[in-house]
Amino acid sequence: MKTTAPTIPTPDDAALWHDGHLYLADQRILPQRAEFLVYDQAAAVADAIRAMVVRGAPAIGIAAAYGVVLAGRAAFTAAGAGWKTAITADLARLAASRPTAVNLFWALRRMEALIAQLADGDPTGALLNEALAIHQEDRDANRRIGELGAALITQPTDIITHCNAGALATGGYGTALGVVRSAFAAGKIGRVFADETRPWLQGARLTAWELMHDGIPVTLQADCAAASLMATGTVGWVIVGSDRIAANGDVANKIGTYGLAVLARHHGIKVMVAAPTSTVDMSIASGAEIPIEERDPAELLGCGGQQLAPVGCVARNPVFDVTPAALVDAIVTERGVVLNPTTEKMRGLMG
Amino acid sequence: MKTTAPTIPTPDDAALWHDGHLYLADQRILPQRAEFLVYDQAAAVADAIRAMVVRGAPAIGIAAAYGVVLAGRAAFTAAGAGWKTAITADLARLAASRPTAVNLFWALRRMEALIAQLADGDPTGALLNEALAIHQEDRDANRRIGELGAALITQPTDIITHCNAGALATGGYGTALGVVRSAFAAGKIGRVFADETRPWLQGARLTAWELMHDGIPVTLQADCAAASLMATGTVGWVIVGSDRIAANGDVANKIGTYGLAVLARHHGIKVMVAAPTSTVDMSIASGAEIPIEERDPAELLGCGGQQLAPVGCVARNPVFDVTPAALVDAIVTERGVVLNPTTEKMRGLMG
Repeated sequence: MKTTAPTIPTPDDAALWHDGHLYLADQRILPQRAEFLVYDQAAAVADAIRAMVVRGAPAIGIAAAYGVVLAGRAAFTAAGAGWKTAITADLARLAASRPTAVNLFWALRRMEALIAQLADGDPTGALLNEALAIHQEDRDANRRIGELGAALITQPTDIITHCNAGALATGGYGTALGVVRSAFAAGKIGRVFADETRPWLQGARLTAWELMHDGIPVTLQADCAAASLMATGTVGWVIVGSDRIAANGDVANKIGTYGLAVLARHHGIKVMVAAPTSTVDMSIASGAEIPIEERDPAELLGCGGQQLAPVGCVARNPVFDVTPAALVDAIVTERGVVLNPTTEKMRGLMG
Repeated sequence: MKTTAPTIPTPDDAALWHDGHLYLADQRILPQRAEFLVYDQAAAVADAIRAMVVRGAPAIGIAAAYGVVLAGRAAFTAAGAGWKTAITADLARLAASRPTAVNLFWALRRMEALIAQLADGDPTGALLNEALAIHQEDRDANRRIGELGAALITQPTDIITHCNAGALATGGYGTALGVVRSAFAAGKIGRVFADETRPWLQGARLTAWELMHDGIPVTLQADCAAASLMATGTVGWVIVGSDRIAANGDVANKIGTYGLAVLARHHGIKVMVAAPTSTVDMSIASGAEIPIEERDPAELLGCGGQQLAPVGCVARNPVFDVTPAALVDAIVTERGVVLNPTTEKMRGLMG
């Protein structure tokens, strides 16, 4: 826990609680500016998730859990013993912020389960303890994912990652980038090729910033340059995170992941999906049931705040896609690794 | 021929000669601004090709041909009967402007062949006639390519195109977009999905502008969104241009084309490469011999003139890739169509 008010976020500071406030590193402006925004109301946290101040499936879940702390505090202030009724609107707001990453709903369900057990008194302390636990468990999960994922890499290789599944996308350390960090420390990674990841440029802005911060050699490339890189033969793994994994091992992740997986298979390159079990949604049979968010076409019509396409141009902006389990070589969670995932194996993992 | 000085370029005005000047539509600023730049010196034309004021393999060849007219006029003004010696530096400058598109070298060779036949007098008129012929032949070739390519599309379908192989990339009408124009007129195309084509955004800026100009329904998408679109089953063809086609049918084109071709094969979608025979380079056996231009990483580190990646970030920026002939279903030229290209079939086409 930080004891002085945080000022400049590091990659591990996507979300943090300090002195009664939620701090979110503003990921819309990184890396040109590293700034925190401070939140005291759940509705504002929901807006921050929607606007992608904070993004990345586990980080969204963590931010939402802290949002519930703010919601509980406000509900008790406003309604006293009636806080469990007063909090419902904020819970609904948080749940409606983004549709694809299941970690959001997982975290809210966990907070709601606690709420169901609480009495009528001020819930703030209990809610905060649960949110801090969710946060710490995610950090711990990522360390374990890092170890397990790195162990799968049998010889030094270049790797490709897509979007940002790093410290900024999680409670810290990262999922895909957790594997990269652990594998790099073990001497198993030559260069990391980071897809820039249009339209939001999580790769160019966030992954590059994180890896440069850690001194890990990162080379940025256009998303559509991954195929020609694969053809050179230096890349052994594509390592990505996930926003939701279905019971059969189908993986929803940032738009472009599916194409990378097809290309990887064509080139004999392996695909590793690194995610905590909070990302696994055993309630849906396959990826076909995962809601795929479509965001504002404006994200695609311009770049860096400037309109580049013709005014009035129609655009398609799905921000996730689904990679069939058959194209995934390994799902790495804190509970263990699932190779060539199937429903049976995922059931075995999730118990 | 325009009889008044051109003011606002249309998509068919990538390059045009008027009243002793070469006009190039400035493709760096389209579609936000539609402006001509005017050229009177070959060295400035070479710079314009390098800076991508004009781009697209056939358009580069045409611009270079007009550049030779300017070079010849200047050489005769400076050196009189010694113009054939005086012109050589400008010819070398034009040839050094960009490496991948073979149309540049094809056009220069054709102009040099004419130069070899000329006497010591003022060459300007003869050179201009040859440049105008190169330009008109390219327009005519594209109309024929459009017909032949459209005939390959047997039922109405959505298509994906990448980069800009349109009127702006050619002498007019376009290669890939020539096929799109002809096929759309024949009722064979539902929607055109235009990959935005990072880093230079030829799709978002130029293809979208051209197709909206013609009233052809175009939907912009992130390059890495093509795979999830393909999975929906509405896309029957990927239709692209080319910068150089080797003797065996390997195709160099804008970075990302190779990945699209792999994805297309995975989804049972056909790949059509539309290009004039001036793009075919029978002097090289395969795509492995095609020089792939790497451009300034700055193109990738920012967007819309704004730095977005961390300062000092390393980037890889190859702007072309090579698609093996085995992934190409049809090469469409003005001389005819080559299905499933091989060296033997390409020899048959080129005679």
